[in-house]
Amino acid sequence: MALGRVSLVGAGPGDPELWTLRALRRVEEADLVLYDALVDAAALRGLTRAQCFCVGKRAGRASVKQETINRLMIRAARRGKKVVRLKGGDPFVFGRGAEEMLVLVQAGIAVDVVPGVTTAVAAPEAAGIPVTHRNMASGFLVLTGQTGRGLNDALASVRPGGITVVVMMGLGTRDEIAQAFMTHGWSPQSRAAIICGASTRDEWVWAGTLAELGAPEPPEGVAGVLVIGEVVSIAEALAAAHAQPVVADEVRYGRS
Amino acid sequence: MALGRVSLVGAGPGDPELWTLRALRRVEEADLVLYDALVDAAALRGLTRAQCFCVGKRAGRASVKQETINRLMIRAARRGKKVVRLKGGDPFVFGRGAEEMLVLVQAGIAVDVVPGVTTAVAAPEAAGIPVTHRNMASGFLVLTGQTGRGLNDALASVRPGGITVVVMMGLGTRDEIAQAFMTHGWSPQSRAAIICGASTRDEWVWAGTLAELGAPEPPEGVAGVLVIGEVVSIAEALAAAHAQPVVADEVRYGRS
Repeated sequence: MALGRVSLVGAGPGDPELWTLRALRRVEEADLVLYDALVDAAALRGLTRAQCFCVGKRAGRASVKQETINRLMIRAARRGKKVVRLKGGDPFVFGRGAEEMLVLVQAGIAVDVVPGVTTAVAAPEAAGIPVTHRNMASGFLVLTGQTGRGLNDALASVRPGGITVVVMMGLGTRDEIAQAFMTHGWSPQSRAAIICGASTRDEWVWAGTLAELGAPEPPEGVAGVLVIGEVVSIAEALAAAHAQPVVADEVRYGRS
Repeated sequence: MALGRVSLVGAGPGDPELWTLRALRRVEEADLVLYDALVDAAALRGLTRAQCFCVGKRAGRASVKQETINRLMIRAARRGKKVVRLKGGDPFVFGRGAEEMLVLVQAGIAVDVVPGVTTAVAAPEAAGIPVTHRNMASGFLVLTGQTGRGLNDALASVRPGGITVVVMMGLGTRDEIAQAFMTHGWSPQSRAAIICGASTRDEWVWAGTLAELGAPEPPEGVAGVLVIGEVVSIAEALAAAHAQPVVADEVRYGRS
């Protein structure tokens, strides 16, 4: 019997064309795919003969417990199956990927990691916002929007301005997040943006100021990132330089 | 005559299997590819009938000036060519991608951006280091190693510990960088790592402390990133949990 294995695979921000070639190969060869809710399930099922199960959170439905996911992966790999654990974005960016890898390695299972296009960079990019820009942002900081001590600690450790801050999983608490930034000295006039469903047909972009971050109403049931920083103005400079609006499924500027 | 266009495409950390499907499609369809030195040129030439020119820096040879690259792209697109500007990692992470995009849009050229797997995340990942980890790193900061005011400003703005710092393009000045971290209050015992040629056959990994960062001698002519943070210990935990060493071209742990 062939030896089983688990591949922790990043699926990128949403559009299946932003999978890596290796991600595609792992999925094509898989016997079992456990995927997060952020992954395009229809595209996935068209690409593989593997059994596919959604183990991620969906609106109103609880996600499968981490212990259950671990047990499923270990059992299948021990039975000789090729398992793919498919995660939105990159497996090692807020994806608990390293935790899963530790559990699997400790269970004696062969594991490999396939990096993915991280939503932290690709979502702003889809909206024409670079996370770095010469003479504007010399670096970028990526945080989660879990409010409370974690966010406050992170914000206390960063001097306002100078770098771009990307907040993942902060859509639902964007009002509190904006408040936390301002409490930590960020100007209410700091440029801010919300990008939902990046690279998908549901892409939705808003740009404004930190003070206004709570006001817009993003579509429901779609994941999004917040961007705070001067680089938001680059998207406006791009928009000003051309006459037509951004096409949702593939950002394209200029006269085409 | 067909309308020309320019695609700013991310090629990921090195291994051509970490290209996205869209990156591959853009390159296959291209008439002209202008690529950076970080891109696998042999793999590229096998994938396209396009004319391919290296415009990036190579050891001892000056790179093509940014103005020349811009002029080449604009001229070719105006002649109806499909141009791909292929960059290592992601085009909007320290790649001057947004600057090129602004110039092109202002010249009336149609442009699209294809995000790539950023080396800032994938290089540590290849070495078993997650940039985030629960109860260890609640976020990550990405900087360049250009010493002087930029680095010092960035370090002054971040409280030591708590988040992971990834320094790109800092291999040659790692001694000064380590010094700058310690000057800004980071403990000399902070965990640190160097990852060169991530995802390629030349992959080279070192792990130690901030104080020792200047001591190891990475291979010459290979790009690398520095990681400073407690998450470096995850790679050691993974190594401790399995018996065999990390395989260079594809990280694989466990008994396989």
